[in-house]
Amino acid sequence: MQTFTVDGMTCGHCVAAVTAELTALAPGATVEVSLGDGGPSTVTVDGAVLTPEQVAAALDEAGGYTLVGTPGA
Amino acid sequence: MQTFTVDGMTCGHCVAAVTAELTALAPGATVEVSLGDGGPSTVTVDGAVLTPEQVAAALDEAGGYTLVGTPGA
Repeated sequence: MQTFTVDGMTCGHCVAAVTAELTALAPGATVEVSLGDGGPSTVTVDGAVLTPEQVAAALDEAGGYTLVGTPGA
Repeated sequence: MQTFTVDGMTCGHCVAAVTAELTALAPGATVEVSLGDGGPSTVTVDGAVLTPEQVAAALDEAGGYTLVGTPGA
């Protein structure tokens, strides 16, 4: 499982957009988002291995979100 | 023109969802949203007359937003 930290997500629409974009990138994977309350959010991807570049591009496409960290695998 | 004050909108997706819902309610109207930065947002409707009840229902449908004020017409 990969864990990414993301800035700029604020609401359920952001969660839905990021989940949809990452699921499109990795159709077989399980994507979960924990929305940060006023801070960074945590996105986990299970069942696929994505590069930070892929994730950053998908986050930008989903709504201009910023990948700020890849704390763990 | 009607002006409504709305709580809970945080991002561009919220703006898009509210604009779409109100435009569906009043197809000929011009709907504009000024997103509050950490505070209430302002929604203006021009070209239609909506009741606060109609607007509150549309806001709820768009994403659970709350109508907190109808400061002016």
